[in-house]
Formats: sequence, structure tokens, C-alpha cells
Amino acid sequence: MSLIALLPGDGIGPEVVAEARRVLDALALDLTFEEAPVGGAAYLAQGQPLPPDTLALAKRADAILFGAVGDPQFDALERRLRPEAAILGLRRELGLYANLRPATLTPGLEDASPLKPDIARAIDMIIVRESNGDIYFGEKGHRTGLGGVREGFDLMKYDETEVARIAHVAFGIARRRKRKLCSIDKANVLETSQLWRDVVNEVSGDYDDVELTHMYVDNAAMQMVRNPGQFDVILTGNMFGDILSDEASMCVGSIGMLPSATLSSWRDTLGLYEPIHGSAPDIAGQGKANPCAAILSAAMMLRHSLNMMEAAMRIEGAVAQAIAGGARTPDLGGSLSTNAMGDAILAHL
Amino acid sequence: MSLIALLPGDGIGPEVVAEARRVLDALALDLTFEEAPVGGAAYLAQGQPLPPDTLALAKRADAILFGAVGDPQFDALERRLRPEAAILGLRRELGLYANLRPATLTPGLEDASPLKPDIARAIDMIIVRESNGDIYFGEKGHRTGLGGVREGFDLMKYDETEVARIAHVAFGIARRRKRKLCSIDKANVLETSQLWRDVVNEVSGDYDDVELTHMYVDNAAMQMVRNPGQFDVILTGNMFGDILSDEASMCVGSIGMLPSATLSSWRDTLGLYEPIHGSAPDIAGQGKANPCAAILSAAMMLRHSLNMMEAAMRIEGAVAQAIAGGARTPDLGGSLSTNAMGDAILAHL
Ligand SMILES: CC(C)[C@H](C(=O)O)[C@@H](O)C(=O)O
Ligand SMILES: CC(C)[C@H](C(=O)O)[C@@H](O)C(=O)O
Repeated sequence: MSLIALLPGDGIGPEVVAEARRVLDALALDLTFEEAPVGGAAYLAQGQPLPPDTLALAKRADAILFGAVGDPQFDALERRLRPEAAILGLRRELGLYANLRPATLTPGLEDASPLKPDIARAIDMIIVRESNGDIYFGEKGHRTGLGGVREGFDLMKYDETEVARIAHVAFGIARRRKRKLCSIDKANVLETSQLWRDVVNEVSGDYDDVELTHMYVDNAAMQMVRNPGQFDVILTGNMFGDILSDEASMCVGSIGMLPSATLSSWRDTLGLYEPIHGSAPDIAGQGKANPCAAILSAAMMLRHSLNMMEAAMRIEGAVAQAIAGGARTPDLGGSLSTNAMGDAILAHL
Repeated sequence: MSLIALLPGDGIGPEVVAEARRVLDALALDLTFEEAPVGGAAYLAQGQPLPPDTLALAKRADAILFGAVGDPQFDALERRLRPEAAILGLRRELGLYANLRPATLTPGLEDASPLKPDIARAIDMIIVRESNGDIYFGEKGHRTGLGGVREGFDLMKYDETEVARIAHVAFGIARRRKRKLCSIDKANVLETSQLWRDVVNEVSGDYDDVELTHMYVDNAAMQMVRNPGQFDVILTGNMFGDILSDEASMCVGSIGMLPSATLSSWRDTLGLYEPIHGSAPDIAGQGKANPCAAILSAAMMLRHSLNMMEAAMRIEGAVAQAIAGGARTPDLGGSLSTNAMGDAILAHL
């Protein structure tokens, strides 16, 4: 019996996680669920975005199914009380270091991309973003310098063990795909990037069968639009990965379809699974959200954390068939409600 | 008599700067030119990418017309000897703090964009990138920590005077455009960004007629692809500006057309003008480069540094007419040489 921590969070999080739960229930797997508040919802209920009981549940669970956090109503709070502190806290406390974001076009949704069809059709990549270090978790603060001038600072840093660890993940994934790995940094300006590049080159010695290239982040932001089909596996740090993975998902066109996994260094099979779309407060509670990304995140969870490959494939197949059959939520140009989209997928399970 | 420092640099830099020079000569303005080596070319000739004489010329000049720097043959050198150190050195030594990058579609080139035509046609923005601070110029280095573990670090920082200075530039530009300013940061994670946001909000008090919004950089990287027409003036820091401005220029589709200006805090009218395309070593010396971006950079120079508005407009008009008349270098799908494109523009002056 595996324990799943359900952390629905804010905005459309609860709606889409509920559909993922329905799909998992329908498969009658050996799972048990426990739910806890997180993000703005937890702040409202308990005065903090990541309450100790929520964290304890996440640590105890075999896997975490996460919705989304964030709402502009909390923007004025200090950073540690904002909803985002919950996801950052989970990454830090659970050593969630490998954020995997596949960006692929779902057959039938080729037109959703803002890119020209020929360019969009070629997109099939996975971004491996380090998510436990970098400027996110370095020393940071405010200080008042000479003459009372306010200053803000954040330290970017990586050490070789952090880089090697995520590089191995990326090379391993590349091996199971087209064996092309592109590592993205800004080594012409940053010392952190120079170390990153050196260590990735060293690790590549263990993976002679994978072709490694390096690209500067500014160029990568261009190439992602010009010809995203050139990428197979992308390896990058936390900050650049945040930017590039969102850009990539928009190039695909339907962020309502894209799942993600974040693996832990803490216990091999532990992971956090979340749709990459955010909390979308503007459409929350209206049944307009696309549950596919959350449902596909549940499939990633079955595969990576629970070794339930067949169930994972059944879910992915059902989503593909529902889309192929014309099921569309508003973000995909249709009019199905969140729940009706869930039904369409359940019908194909 | 105004003195123009010509710094052609590497790769296609010399070819495109030569065409810009021809155009300026044809206008018979009261200009005098002095040329100096920079980047890899300077390293080969004098052992350093920004020789003292080149820097002295840049300081003495009324404006700097820059080509491009960079060549993979120098990748293994230490950072301070690489071609890129020249442009970074110029920015630091001359206080070049306001990097202005217009991204607009040239009529006739609508199809060049990888974006769908309806989305691309709406692009008309200018990115105001701070270029004299941030993680580019903070403390940086390597160190070996406990147990001999290598670590690389770079400090991101801004103080309020730096932010206020660039914010005033951006608000001033917005006033002369559609009065919409979008400031981009990562205030949900970075203290530097929180200060940035606070100060931009404070400065906005002086510009009640400009509508200010804030956006996170990851969302901005998405919106740039989804709907770039929503942006009028973008204000952002050095690191995020590097990434977003390249992304924006690729969304336009023809980076061979886009100029840039970088203004100095050191002397009001001083500025460095450069095409945003790089040195493109793969096509260097073959007469394949598009000189339009360099020529339009010369026009920006006349406008911002030399107060020669009419001459600037004549150049811009001639480029527009040449393109409208079907003149196309290979990057635009045509077969004109660099020189022949220069001729086509000269014919319309
Ligand atoms: C909410 C925010 C802190 C987070 C990040 O920047 O990592 C988000 O953008 C993401 O990509 O998961
Ligand atoms: C060459 C490099 C150091 C430079 C930068 O990162 O600023 C370039 O990418 C640019 O945008 O001018």
C-alpha cells in the first residue's frame, strides 16, 4: 500500500487534483491518499504556507501529488509567508533536486502553439532543471550601504557535487531517448556557469554514447523559438531552467497539458508531481481548468515513484484518446468543464 | 566635427560596420572616424581584447559604432582574455548602463518570424535592459570548500540608485510611446528583484501618465511567445534582459535587422551602438552578412548621441525602402551580398 500526499493548494489546484484523484481511484491501485493544505490555502487556515503537518505528511508519503500555489492577494506578505514559499520549502526540505519537464506536442493539438505549425510539430524535448540550489537557495538579503542607499543581493552558487548529481540524471534520461544532451549556462559571464560546464564535461566521460553540446542561455532562449525541434534533453540550473522551461511549454502551446516531476535526493523513489500551469486565480472555481496536466502528472508519479508502469501507460493512453476524440476544455478551444474532461478521460481508461 | 570610434571586432563585425560607414559617408555629415581593434581581433594583435588605446579612443569619442565580438577559437582562454571581455569592459569603464533594444517587425518581413503571422505582426516593443550592474559585475569566483569540493559563485545585486536611474530612462521612453511599461523581475524568489520592484514603484510616482505593470521573468518568457504584442516598453535587469531581449529579437524573426544603443552615465550624449546579431563566425568573410542592423545602429547613433535627427530618419527610410523594394540578404531568404545590400540602401538615401 503506497501513501500519496495530496497537496491541492490554491486557485485551480484543487479542481485539477480532484480529477487526477478520480482517475487514480478508477484504476483501483494499491494506494491510500492523505490530503493537507499548502500555499495560500494553508496560510489562510494556519498562518503559514507550509505547515509542519503538511511537511511531515510529504516526508512520510511515497509520492506527492501537488496542485498549484499562488494568488496575488498574498503579494504584500513577506516572502516566507507567500504561497510560493511552500513549493520552495518542499524543494529544500525534501532535497527535490531534479525537476523534469517534458515538453511535447499532444497529437491533435498542433494548432495550439503560437509557433508556425512546421516548427511546433517538431517539439519533443525534456528539460532537466536543477531545483535544489543556485540563486534560489544562496545567501540573500537587503542591506543599507553608504549614505543609506538600499541594496538587495542574492548569491548564485553551485558546487561540483550538485552539478554532477543533476548531470547524471540528465545523461541517464538522454540515454533512454535520442542521446542528445544540451547543457545551458552563461559561462561567458558567470563563474558558476564555468564550474557547471567543467563538471558536465567531466561527467560526460561516463556517457560516451550521448552527444553533449553547450549553449549560452541567451542563445537558448532564441533557439527555443527558432527551432525547438533541435533539442532532445536540456540540462540547466535552477534560474535558467525556470525561464527556459516556461518558454518551452508556451512553445508547445497548451500548458494545460504539461506535467512535471521533481525527484528527491533524500529517498530514491520519492518525488513531487505537479502540472506546470500555475494556480490561475482568474478562472479558479469555475470548472474551466484543464485537468490533463494534473492527470498526466499522476501518471508520471506512477512511473517514477511507484513503479506502476502499466497503470501509467493506461492513463497516458486515455488522455491521448480523449484528446484525439475531440475532448477540449476552454484553453484548448473547447467547452468541456474540468469535470467533463475528467469523464472523457475516464471513459477511455 | 564629431568623432566616431569604429570598433568592428570579430567575425562579420568588420563587414557590416564597413557598410554602415559607407552610408554615413554618403550623407556627408560633419563626422570623423577613428578605428581600433577590439575582441578576438585585438587579442590576436595585441594580446588583450580591450587594449588601452581602444579604450582611450572610446572615451574620447562622441559615439562608438561597434560591430561584434566573439569566436569559439578563444573559448579556452581565461575569461578576461576572451573577446566578450571587451564589451563587458566597455560597459563597465564607460558606465554604459542603458541598453536599448527595439524589437519591431520591418514591413515586408512579416513572414520571417517563427511565430504565426497574426502574433508576429503585433510586435512593436523596446526593451530597456540595465547593463552596468547585476550578476554581471558583482563579486564572482571559484573556491574550494570542505573536502576539496569545487564551488563557483556570482553575486547578483542592485542598489536603489542603479534601479532608479534605469527606471527613469524606461519611463521617459514609455512617455514617448504608448505609455505602457512592464517591469520584469523574479520578486517571488530574489531579494534583488524585490528591491527592483520597490524602487520602480517609487519612481513611477513621477510618471502618472505611464501605466506600470510587473511580471515575473518566467511568465515574461512565456508571454513573449504567446502574445508579444502586449508589450510596449519592457524594463529589466542585466541578466534577465540578456535572455528576454534575445528571445524578443528571435520572435521578430530577422535579427539581421535589429540595432541597439547603450547609453552612458558618464557623459550624457555618449553611447555605444551595435547590431544585436553576434559575430557569426560561420559566415564571416563571405559577404553573406546582413548589414541592416549595423546601418540602423548608425541611425540610432545619429539620433541619440549626435542630435542629427534628419540624417537618422533618412537612413531608416532608405533601409525600409530597400526592403520594401525586395532587397534581401541570405538571412532574409535572398541572395544579395553584404555589399550589394549596402548599395541597395545607398540608392534610396
Ligand atoms: C513559484 C516559483 C517560486 C517557482 C520557481 O520559480 O521555481 C515556479 O515558477 C516554478 O517554476 O515552479
Ligand atoms: C557577449 C555577452 C557577454 C553579452 C551579454 O551577455 O551581455 C551579449 O550576450 C549581449 O547581450 O550583449
